[in-house]
Amino acid sequence: MKYFKPLIILFLQLFNFYSFSQSAIEETRNGNVKPNIIIIFADDLGYGDLSCYGHPTIETPNLDKMANEGQKWTSFYAAASVCTPSRAGLITGRYPIRSGMCGEKSRVLFPNSTGGIPESEITIAEQLKKAGYATAAIGKWHLGHQTSYLPTNNGFDSYFGIPYSNDMDRENAEGLSNKEIFWTPDIKYFNVPLIKGDKEIERPAYQHTLTKRYNEKAVAFIKKNKKKPFFLYLAHNLPHVPLFASSEFINKSKRGIYGDVVQEIDFGVGEIIKTLKELNIDKNTLVVFTSDNGPWLSYRELGGSAGLLRDGKGTTWEGGMRVPGIFWWPGKLKPGIVTNIGSTMDLFSTASSLAKIDLPNDRKIDGVDLSPDLFGLGTAARNEMIYYRGQKIFAARKGAYKLHYVTQTSYVKDAKKTVYKKPILFNLDVDPSETNNIANENPKIIEEINKMVALHKSGIIYVKDQLAERVFD
Amino acid sequence: MKYFKPLIILFLQLFNFYSFSQSAIEETRNGNVKPNIIIIFADDLGYGDLSCYGHPTIETPNLDKMANEGQKWTSFYAAASVCTPSRAGLITGRYPIRSGMCGEKSRVLFPNSTGGIPESEITIAEQLKKAGYATAAIGKWHLGHQTSYLPTNNGFDSYFGIPYSNDMDRENAEGLSNKEIFWTPDIKYFNVPLIKGDKEIERPAYQHTLTKRYNEKAVAFIKKNKKKPFFLYLAHNLPHVPLFASSEFINKSKRGIYGDVVQEIDFGVGEIIKTLKELNIDKNTLVVFTSDNGPWLSYRELGGSAGLLRDGKGTTWEGGMRVPGIFWWPGKLKPGIVTNIGSTMDLFSTASSLAKIDLPNDRKIDGVDLSPDLFGLGTAARNEMIYYRGQKIFAARKGAYKLHYVTQTSYVKDAKKTVYKKPILFNLDVDPSETNNIANENPKIIEEINKMVALHKSGIIYVKDQLAERVFD
Repeated sequence: MKYFKPLIILFLQLFNFYSFSQSAIEETRNGNVKPNIIIIFADDLGYGDLSCYGHPTIETPNLDKMANEGQKWTSFYAAASVCTPSRAGLITGRYPIRSGMCGEKSRVLFPNSTGGIPESEITIAEQLKKAGYATAAIGKWHLGHQTSYLPTNNGFDSYFGIPYSNDMDRENAEGLSNKEIFWTPDIKYFNVPLIKGDKEIERPAYQHTLTKRYNEKAVAFIKKNKKKPFFLYLAHNLPHVPLFASSEFINKSKRGIYGDVVQEIDFGVGEIIKTLKELNIDKNTLVVFTSDNGPWLSYRELGGSAGLLRDGKGTTWEGGMRVPGIFWWPGKLKPGIVTNIGSTMDLFSTASSLAKIDLPNDRKIDGVDLSPDLFGLGTAARNEMIYYRGQKIFAARKGAYKLHYVTQTSYVKDAKKTVYKKPILFNLDVDPSETNNIANENPKIIEEINKMVALHKSGIIYVKDQLAERVFD
Repeated sequence: MKYFKPLIILFLQLFNFYSFSQSAIEETRNGNVKPNIIIIFADDLGYGDLSCYGHPTIETPNLDKMANEGQKWTSFYAAASVCTPSRAGLITGRYPIRSGMCGEKSRVLFPNSTGGIPESEITIAEQLKKAGYATAAIGKWHLGHQTSYLPTNNGFDSYFGIPYSNDMDRENAEGLSNKEIFWTPDIKYFNVPLIKGDKEIERPAYQHTLTKRYNEKAVAFIKKNKKKPFFLYLAHNLPHVPLFASSEFINKSKRGIYGDVVQEIDFGVGEIIKTLKELNIDKNTLVVFTSDNGPWLSYRELGGSAGLLRDGKGTTWEGGMRVPGIFWWPGKLKPGIVTNIGSTMDLFSTASSLAKIDLPNDRKIDGVDLSPDLFGLGTAARNEMIYYRGQKIFAARKGAYKLHYVTQTSYVKDAKKTVYKKPILFNLDVDPSETNNIANENPKIIEEINKMVALHKSGIIYVKDQLAERVFD
């Protein structure tokens, strides 16, 4: 009898949980209301670069407020540790290996690359178009710059931004050192085009005001589409080097130009939130903020910080792929800190779920619907993560445990590579900094992860490497 | 003429600032209301160990709330990188070198030490007694365990706690490895006494429930003294190893026992805040939460994390001395993130200012009154920090710049020591992780810091090393 009362309480709690989250999910799934979805994507912003993730001198009051009112995810992963594959993962909801958007020779697309996101892929924008969403891509694309690969040919009604990284198309920089080019940057060193739709409208892009213009375009798009469901993909090309900020933000941060740049992005987030509130559509809009990969550590003070995580951009250590992940949707999300695993790949499935669109059934979608975590069901939607470098699996996570088969330090030419005869294992919940190898004590966990990886590999169909083909003069 | 309008706005803003902070200061300084002051002091808790400072899996909702409603300081320093001198600094408002509470042979007091805080020192409790405060010390003391050195002989009306670290008085542990003693701890290995007033009441202290009992005693003290101004010094002896938590907190955290322990401390913070609100004295109580030094890294998962800061406990790298610093006083503090420099030594001067007690004029007080930062005057009360290891100055900070004369890695026996022929310089605002030596580019700043250190040194009167004398059987 003594177990009876606790059992009843447990039952009531479970029912409560279930009905709360079911009603929250139903509320959005039923009726005709399809929520607006905004993804704000930073470039090379590290896990430790926002105040709410512990940075001492970068002040990000708008993102902090989003995190306080919404959810701050602490195990949120980019799909890869460098730009092109990371973006491919977000846009398709699939590991980039499936679309051929990760390469062995070239890790990202370059101005002389001829490949891009295959037409056979379904982008998150194409998916949301099925439900009648107005769609816009603003900012950096980096999934192919030949016309057929541009956003407007991949589900987006409009595009305004640069087609690849802001440090590319190096010109007028001959004889200059990296120090001169990046520490005292001039837009003339980077002959990057600015594209509107599929037309070049400015070259070199006047990088000083790009963030400002992106933010303005984002606000204008929201205002224009306030009566329809809309999807906005705002992919800032900063804080990737070279660093430029509008004059209003120069010297605003104690952190130097890197901080100025992040604070201008944060300001834009504030403008977007303000606009949603003014238009009274905030309660029907999910805003997600995240980053494409970890900080570019070799650029020292021009690169960011992964906080307590190990290493940065380009690596499969946590600092390379675990990024800030903030979800905001007033009145709908269960506010708090989410320590469960999530990934940018999950945005495809989550957006599809919220917009009530079936997932494609002719292909593997790796992303999962994060609704249970978002609405506080208490169950983790995702339990694993595969860490690719190029087309190779370097590490895998299952629950708290991460097994490294290969590690290679930061994104530099002489990066030291270690192939482990006996893979190394970390408990990321207990040891997020990956300092304490516990492989010897946990043979069963290693076996489980190996099985998981084998199963994943068996499902991969290797396709054409879109990053391999480049034209050299 | 075009500069006229901005000038007027600037003037109005300055006036606004001035009158806001003046009125805030006056409001507390005038009248007969003396605010209650609570200092909650953790042991070996690192800069990165709270959610609000970026830890991914330690959940500290009560401290996060304190930080959100109050101030989160991001350059807040303990007075030293190990226990005894750090506590001496907080209690006296002076660098521990002035009281002889930092040693060269012994860095802290041990059970066989005969020294302690000199009678000539004025403690923060003695200072507040002058203004009629009720005072209590709960938790770890570590400023001398001979009767005359105990809290009740140093300004505190009452004391309940352990007199030194919870890993001392090693007994019944012969033949056991460190791994056995700390990874599977038993209270019988640590024959630490529990003191009430100046009497031993339990030995070995039943460490499993110490945090719980401290929290309960704290709440009881607040309730008993709700009508008087009071000063509570709640110095938890955890998360210093060995780690023990109450049964209610075991396995509550994904971070393991270290997380369980921190979450029990956080729970106690919540109970204290709740009590203040219930008694309706929250608006007249300043609560400060901080730590005595950085994380003990050599204990791996049993030690904490310094987040993005370099190294940990025992070192003069930032990870050794920069700690969480949270100030809470609803309706009085200007909420937000404070990036200015502060130190536990400043609590002596700040408390004196708030309680309207003159500072002693017969000695150097190193602490400064933090009121300008607390009330949002916008001026930084502190601009420098001297980093001692034992009785030697290893580093010094002026504004954003920190100069290292000597570095020595973590608190282990074979700690590598480097004496720099040419000291190394970091800009901590830009490079909080101390990775990028900028000494060559900044000779003038080095000169200024050298002058500052020389001036500091010239004012030091070397006194008896209280940590040197130990009795060996």
